[in-house]
Amino acid sequence: MPIMPRADPLPVVGITMGDPAGIGPEIIARALTDPGVAARARCVVYGDARVMERALALTGAAAAAGAIQLVDLANADPAAFPTGRVSALCGRASWEYVKAAANAALAGGLDAVATAPLNKEAVAAARVPHVGHTEMLGALARVENPLTMFETLGLRVFFLSRHVSLRQACELVLRPQIVDCLRRCAAALARLGIQGAIAVAGLNPHCGEHGLFGDEEGREIQPAIAEARALGIAVEGPLGADSVFHLARTGRYAAVLSLYHDQGHIACKTLDFQRTVSLTLGLPFLRTSVDHGTAFDIAWKGKASAVSMSEAIYAAARYAKSYRGEVVPPGRGSTARTP
Amino acid sequence: MPIMPRADPLPVVGITMGDPAGIGPEIIARALTDPGVAARARCVVYGDARVMERALALTGAAAAAGAIQLVDLANADPAAFPTGRVSALCGRASWEYVKAAANAALAGGLDAVATAPLNKEAVAAARVPHVGHTEMLGALARVENPLTMFETLGLRVFFLSRHVSLRQACELVLRPQIVDCLRRCAAALARLGIQGAIAVAGLNPHCGEHGLFGDEEGREIQPAIAEARALGIAVEGPLGADSVFHLARTGRYAAVLSLYHDQGHIACKTLDFQRTVSLTLGLPFLRTSVDHGTAFDIAWKGKASAVSMSEAIYAAARYAKSYRGEVVPPGRGSTARTP
Repeated sequence: MPIMPRADPLPVVGITMGDPAGIGPEIIARALTDPGVAARARCVVYGDARVMERALALTGAAAAAGAIQLVDLANADPAAFPTGRVSALCGRASWEYVKAAANAALAGGLDAVATAPLNKEAVAAARVPHVGHTEMLGALARVENPLTMFETLGLRVFFLSRHVSLRQACELVLRPQIVDCLRRCAAALARLGIQGAIAVAGLNPHCGEHGLFGDEEGREIQPAIAEARALGIAVEGPLGADSVFHLARTGRYAAVLSLYHDQGHIACKTLDFQRTVSLTLGLPFLRTSVDHGTAFDIAWKGKASAVSMSEAIYAAARYAKSYRGEVVPPGRGSTARTP
Repeated sequence: MPIMPRADPLPVVGITMGDPAGIGPEIIARALTDPGVAARARCVVYGDARVMERALALTGAAAAAGAIQLVDLANADPAAFPTGRVSALCGRASWEYVKAAANAALAGGLDAVATAPLNKEAVAAARVPHVGHTEMLGALARVENPLTMFETLGLRVFFLSRHVSLRQACELVLRPQIVDCLRRCAAALARLGIQGAIAVAGLNPHCGEHGLFGDEEGREIQPAIAEARALGIAVEGPLGADSVFHLARTGRYAAVLSLYHDQGHIACKTLDFQRTVSLTLGLPFLRTSVDHGTAFDIAWKGKASAVSMSEAIYAAARYAKSYRGEVVPPGRGSTARTP
């Protein structure tokens, strides 16, 4: 008689409320009524109880959500800040939610953290010494340069460079940088429990058509791929940027390494604008995030879509245990096999 | 009692068979059995009767298609060339189909031309003095530098530059080039009967975030947009490349001007790889095309998808009459109004 494993407990996902003046509270309130969220994760919100109560009332989610689990930092009195506007109070509050959730995750109390948007101007106004989420989390976890991965409808994308000009991004397409990035991407995929090869996108149209327009493919990218393969990394390419994302999306590749910010962003956000989730990898815990801002123009009007917030929680739940090393992905080592 | 207009006759679309050794004949055979094609256009194939008969038999389309209208150039005896391979015979034959269809269109016998893929190597092997379709059509119609537009699920995209390296594409982001391109795009949209503004994509991530990474937006793109507006062109931007295609697709803009080849290609082909159609504008007649090659690896195996061919015929039918100037688009001038 086979021994049936007991039901796996749901991962615990910390959700930071983001800037209280933005759309964070209401999209969290909505996401908590999503049966898909309830089925995948046990959610703990890091925020302000008064703000969350208002958000639950605004969205009509109060009844549906029932009692939500909330760590109340009691730092954002709704009477003390204007909604839809930059304020130092809200900037400081949003930083405190991130700090509290990150510390809980570092202590092992959370399996992952999903973040609602903060506002960089508000954070700066509060004299918080970190520009945004990635810098905050890097500092709290003492990790330099965490790795970002996008995921949209199963398409996963890494970035060789991000917030630099397109001209400078071209300059950064260099063999050592690509090899180093591929090592980090491969390690991240392994930690997420994802199998399969990484496809490297080309830089030039049609990968330069054998040097006819652009020579980075032959000079830097192909040698980098060869070097990465020699290191045991499963990697293919370069592949034309107009087909590589389609191929990865249909399951041919585990992920795509895009060579500049917009290359990967255009693919993900044109494919599905709302379902693009950002994952921060390389920290001791997994962090996922919506891929939009505080949207002050529509905040607290009950109009904001919670699709991206739900997707960020789904992704946190999907990968949290593998990321923590609690689950050996199928096919990796004999311990995962049924005898 | 209102006078009912008589039913509009279907536009006549010439279809060139493409390289006989490639997937052109079989995808045409399939597309001719598509009820959507039959409902939209009267198709005339420019090709070889023996080849088309085999393609109809291969795809099982013979019975369904009934008698197809074919201009038989009798230039590709199936016994004289290998399928799935480059040959001078097929290169020459494919050029002759284009020449015959283009001349028929120039003489007014066709409302538009939809082309199946030819093979550039085969065309070169036949010593045809034109590299590909665009050059052939430009030469036959005596038009320099025709304009290309992509269309995918209602998303329309123009290109400031195409087959140059990404570095060179950055160099070409210059005010006069952008203004000139916008004039041509606006004229092309008007001729297609499409209303609405053109959105210009940014070059750098987040449009350079006020010059923080990249200054082309402030230095070249914004002044070009202002100049184009002063000329009466409806144009907006620059907009971040990660949102502009999504916005255009949802109907906010008539088209996007992408600033380099892959910017627009990634958007269209990630959105729907098979439904991307290319339109050649600026010729006396409208030409549409599949956005794939001869696919020699799967040719004559009955495996090739005809989705793109059907879409190319749909697009030809959709725009042919407006392009010919026979239909005044609704809202343009009083002649289109119901009295």
